[in-house]
Amino acid sequence: MTFQPFLEAIGKQVDNTTYGANPIELYEPIQYIMSLGGKRLRPLLTTLSAHLFTDDWHKTLKPAVAVEVFHNFTLMHDDIMDCAPLRRGKPTVHEKWNANTAILSGDVMLVNAYELLLDVEPACLPKVIKRFNRTAAEVCEGQQFDMNFETRTDVSQEEYIEMIRLKTSVLLGFAMELGGIIAGADDATTQALYDAGVSMGLGFQLKDDLLDVYGDPEKFGKQVGGDIIANKKTFMLIEALLLAEGETKEQLHYWLTQEQGTYDTATKVAAVTDIYTQLGIDKIAEAKANAYFAHGFEVLQNLPVAETRKKPLLDFAEFLVGRES
Amino acid sequence: MTFQPFLEAIGKQVDNTTYGANPIELYEPIQYIMSLGGKRLRPLLTTLSAHLFTDDWHKTLKPAVAVEVFHNFTLMHDDIMDCAPLRRGKPTVHEKWNANTAILSGDVMLVNAYELLLDVEPACLPKVIKRFNRTAAEVCEGQQFDMNFETRTDVSQEEYIEMIRLKTSVLLGFAMELGGIIAGADDATTQALYDAGVSMGLGFQLKDDLLDVYGDPEKFGKQVGGDIIANKKTFMLIEALLLAEGETKEQLHYWLTQEQGTYDTATKVAAVTDIYTQLGIDKIAEAKANAYFAHGFEVLQNLPVAETRKKPLLDFAEFLVGRES
Repeated sequence: MTFQPFLEAIGKQVDNTTYGANPIELYEPIQYIMSLGGKRLRPLLTTLSAHLFTDDWHKTLKPAVAVEVFHNFTLMHDDIMDCAPLRRGKPTVHEKWNANTAILSGDVMLVNAYELLLDVEPACLPKVIKRFNRTAAEVCEGQQFDMNFETRTDVSQEEYIEMIRLKTSVLLGFAMELGGIIAGADDATTQALYDAGVSMGLGFQLKDDLLDVYGDPEKFGKQVGGDIIANKKTFMLIEALLLAEGETKEQLHYWLTQEQGTYDTATKVAAVTDIYTQLGIDKIAEAKANAYFAHGFEVLQNLPVAETRKKPLLDFAEFLVGRES
Repeated sequence: MTFQPFLEAIGKQVDNTTYGANPIELYEPIQYIMSLGGKRLRPLLTTLSAHLFTDDWHKTLKPAVAVEVFHNFTLMHDDIMDCAPLRRGKPTVHEKWNANTAILSGDVMLVNAYELLLDVEPACLPKVIKRFNRTAAEVCEGQQFDMNFETRTDVSQEEYIEMIRLKTSVLLGFAMELGGIIAGADDATTQALYDAGVSMGLGFQLKDDLLDVYGDPEKFGKQVGGDIIANKKTFMLIEALLLAEGETKEQLHYWLTQEQGTYDTATKVAAVTDIYTQLGIDKIAEAKANAYFAHGFEVLQNLPVAETRKKPLLDFAEFLVGRES
């Protein structure tokens, strides 16, 4: 994997990052959540994007970790809001400690993200902070839309795509843009990197929704079928509600209206998955995800940069398309 | 009041500040908490500190409001942690909406504070963000110490002072320093402003603790006696525990160990207040607060700035010393 050196450098940078010491109740949860791992997707995108323009991509490591710290801050707070017991197979911060600790540690994590972002040339700091602020606000907006959708039954595909664009994709866009800004790319190029990141982010989330239904439980980190159990209004469910007719439609509505605790979850997951497959939702969702990935690739391929410089980033993008976990 | 024009300009700036529009669930609570008022102490300190060096203090209005937005963000999150039902006599955000909304609106408020801070000359942005980051982390540390103290019985005066320094005073210090930085003051001067702000912040908090016990219920915004009911380990309680002997000591321990709901709160407040007065705690606390204020005044008086430029800031500081609410 041509992106392996980048991943290793990020791993070391994360391990060497300190967030504060005292009081320990505030800082221990930050070390904890950052140590749970994950794909380090966002800092990889930052360093790989910087590498398009410079061999000195190491100088983006601290800002790249800022994006990862921000991402984990959103996970810590989202997990409180979603009452999630597990994160990457380990107890969430509010479960291991308590909700107050998760609120306050998360707050100081957001401040830590800004502190790590300071490690850029002063000349590009205003742009970096401005773009990060916009992105961070949009991620919060996406989370609020996601929560609003829980109690709505009329969420459209456009609304769902806009929600995941805000909640997930803009941060991938910013991660790539940030690498370009620090490496001195011009405005048109950093905008192209942002667009590529957002598009691949949409593909990434749609793929995540697919894996939530069709993933191999041995490989997928989360509970397969979790979205189906929660009636989460994903692209797949919204599409199924549009396409289903007759008995299939009745079956789908039956499962959507059963109260939790009154049915066997494995039966529901199998039944709804079966409906999706009958309706060809898997193929439709895969095609939609691939279209977003393809647009991202196209933008990257059109960048006026030598192919050798692009290779690690394109390799990583291909890895994302083919991932099973 | 020579600081009245500053207060009016801040009021207008707060009224004209927008935080975002959609989704409304995210942004309405921000408008709400910012509209509840308050003394606007922190932005006043920023503008008054800038006025020490320039007539063009209006250019500090947006960053000054950033400090106020940050302060209100901490109130929104602290109120969740403290299960506080009221803020400035109105329902808290987590009561009026819910805890998830208060978490997420607070998060985006912190981002909004950084966005407002961007309205400074690019040359001073790195310093502004660096100092703000440090201050913001310290405020979170102070809140964590405050929560830790709830379950401890051996909090010392030094620990209490350090906790209020972090939770309250450093933000007043930063508010003053920020005004100096934007107005182009040199490092020694901005450091002096910070020190003056921290010192007055300590005086301010000790005065707040005093008013919590001895304030006029008609004038004091909060419930008089709240700290006594909650057994909050303030400077006053810690001092009383050090000084009380014999029957007074027994009485104090009696009230500290009664379970909430098993006694009449007004009787407890009256009894503990009486013990404080017998022990002269009011005089001791007032002397301590005044010593911190005096140090702050001294630092300000030693600044190499014309007296006329200092007058509004000194007038405001005197207003703080004499406040009854």
